[in-house]
Amino acid sequence: MDRGLNMHRSAHDRIDRLQHTLRRKRIDALLVTQPHNRRYLSGYTVPDHGIQESSGVLLIPATGRPYLLTDSRFTLQAEAEAPSFQVDRYDKGLLKLLEKLAAALDLRTLAFESDYMLHATYLRLVSMAEKRSLTLKAESGLIESMRAIKSDSELHRLRASTRLNEKVFQSVFNTIEPGMTEREIALALDLTMREMGAESPSFDTIVAFGTNAARPHAVPTDRELQAGDLVLVDMGLVYQGYCSDMTRTFVVGKPDQTFLDRHRLVRRAMLAGIEAIRAGVTGVAVDRAARQVLRDGGYAAFFGHGLGHGVGMAVHEAPRLSPRYRKQLQANMVVTVEPGIYLADWGGIRLENMVIVGEQGCEVLNQDTTFLDL
Amino acid sequence: MDRGLNMHRSAHDRIDRLQHTLRRKRIDALLVTQPHNRRYLSGYTVPDHGIQESSGVLLIPATGRPYLLTDSRFTLQAEAEAPSFQVDRYDKGLLKLLEKLAAALDLRTLAFESDYMLHATYLRLVSMAEKRSLTLKAESGLIESMRAIKSDSELHRLRASTRLNEKVFQSVFNTIEPGMTEREIALALDLTMREMGAESPSFDTIVAFGTNAARPHAVPTDRELQAGDLVLVDMGLVYQGYCSDMTRTFVVGKPDQTFLDRHRLVRRAMLAGIEAIRAGVTGVAVDRAARQVLRDGGYAAFFGHGLGHGVGMAVHEAPRLSPRYRKQLQANMVVTVEPGIYLADWGGIRLENMVIVGEQGCEVLNQDTTFLDL
Repeated sequence: MDRGLNMHRSAHDRIDRLQHTLRRKRIDALLVTQPHNRRYLSGYTVPDHGIQESSGVLLIPATGRPYLLTDSRFTLQAEAEAPSFQVDRYDKGLLKLLEKLAAALDLRTLAFESDYMLHATYLRLVSMAEKRSLTLKAESGLIESMRAIKSDSELHRLRASTRLNEKVFQSVFNTIEPGMTEREIALALDLTMREMGAESPSFDTIVAFGTNAARPHAVPTDRELQAGDLVLVDMGLVYQGYCSDMTRTFVVGKPDQTFLDRHRLVRRAMLAGIEAIRAGVTGVAVDRAARQVLRDGGYAAFFGHGLGHGVGMAVHEAPRLSPRYRKQLQANMVVTVEPGIYLADWGGIRLENMVIVGEQGCEVLNQDTTFLDL
Repeated sequence: MDRGLNMHRSAHDRIDRLQHTLRRKRIDALLVTQPHNRRYLSGYTVPDHGIQESSGVLLIPATGRPYLLTDSRFTLQAEAEAPSFQVDRYDKGLLKLLEKLAAALDLRTLAFESDYMLHATYLRLVSMAEKRSLTLKAESGLIESMRAIKSDSELHRLRASTRLNEKVFQSVFNTIEPGMTEREIALALDLTMREMGAESPSFDTIVAFGTNAARPHAVPTDRELQAGDLVLVDMGLVYQGYCSDMTRTFVVGKPDQTFLDRHRLVRRAMLAGIEAIRAGVTGVAVDRAARQVLRDGGYAAFFGHGLGHGVGMAVHEAPRLSPRYRKQLQANMVVTVEPGIYLADWGGIRLENMVIVGEQGCEVLNQDTTFLDL
């Protein structure tokens, strides 16, 4: 029950902060359509099945009680999970209900999430707004920027998600042997996640052997593992609503010197990235610290993606560690650090840990040391 | 290889028909963003991870070779899967590439999918269009209406998907016994799907015992099965890109007379719906035929949803069987027929089969007869 209480308290606090922002921006109410944002603010857990099958939206007025609008399938669950919200049903369509609420609350300015609003829905919103002399305002990142900085209970869940992810990895790692296919190992990881209590994978599990690992987003194939092949595993899961994300690259059998040298280089790049992380440092600077190690080793040209990304309710969220992300990191952000090198004729090596940004440095969430055995 | 050839031939034929429509509507090119529409036209199978993480778009000019635009992660797969498309990479962003192609193809009118275009992306499209004096046109349902009528090879896949779904159901059905939880059975179904070769479930598997079945979209809980409980299972999977969807309700142990009477009533409603289906009949009329049986039995008030929906690459697509869908069914549409009754204090019964609409009647895809044992 304690956790439930915390959930409701944090939902309450988040709404307070958001309402403060709305008043500062002179917005009378915000329509929240993005499913992670909806869950973050309300505690309501029903997912959407794609943007075309929404299971509800929030209407957050600048003052007063917030609304959770959904249909008859989900009202009971919504009331149970979001007790501080007024749950209303849109039996005759969301737009009809919104129009009614806009009148009841005497709204003049209604903001919506431009990054999660379909053009078709927007057109219907425009007709409704015109009828009611309501001014629409496209907003972007309002809640995402709140989500980027994690509370203690969120950090707790991210730790638990990472711990479970490593447990799954270790359990399957111990069974890997020549003759298994990429697809078989990926399936074993997915099944073990579910058996061990994860809600789902947080993204499509990547298992790639040898040259297949030269594609950063390889899709598992029926290729069979040969002794001496390198194996890249990039996996994550969702646990209590929060994502994990980890990459390991290893060799089944005896690694050759080339693999060992390259693996050490990537590991040093990861450690240099981790070393550089603390509040106040930009995403560019952290990316540069890791990239410099690869450059010094002569491999900068083989590292074609950014160094990392925020992780939370979504597996990819703010902030980024990349040559283009100039904003400063803040304490209690959680990011991946995942340098890699990719050589089409040979294969790829990527190593990835998750860390919590602190004032003086960072805390590495991962404890798995598979890559240290080498 | 035969199947590959068919795939490319059907992709080619679909593009021809779409281009004909574009010329008729005086549209110079259509931007296709919806992932099922993209796969339907091109054969390119990479899914999106939500609308905010697209793995590519199509640009279909009214004449000439169509384009598949994606990023460096997916170009190899795109070229392999969509050989009749010109695959281009948007390393500097989709909008930059679109602008270049709009110039190269001398486009004057560009249509986009209003039902799968984010407002934020639309704003960027508007800026680009203004720079190039390009007229934007919001379209809806252009490709969805093509998808509603299935080709022979699509019907073949829908049959195979249904067959596999029933095999999974039967395999788990035989293991159900008192003490198991809803969640355990749902997990067993999901795992068996994957083990038997399905790509994924086509929606969140529903397993509900007793009163829990009174919610049409029940989420599996830790409730334990008691002898005599009714069990509602609504499940589907994706196989070769095509969905199945089936519901069965049964009793573990000896059903009482109330269950038997209500089950027979719902079964008669399903059969009446199936009986009513043929090309030229409206969705309203089919819904009414099934609903009338429940009304005659005194249960119309306990059937709160529509009778059915189209199934194909998406588990919910055009057409609908409902009191509001006035369009006529056409031959080779595939729909579910799924009447149900839901009583909060007692439980729920829903039965669901999939059928192919024919000129004179319909073909029922399901062969599972669990519900006939009663």
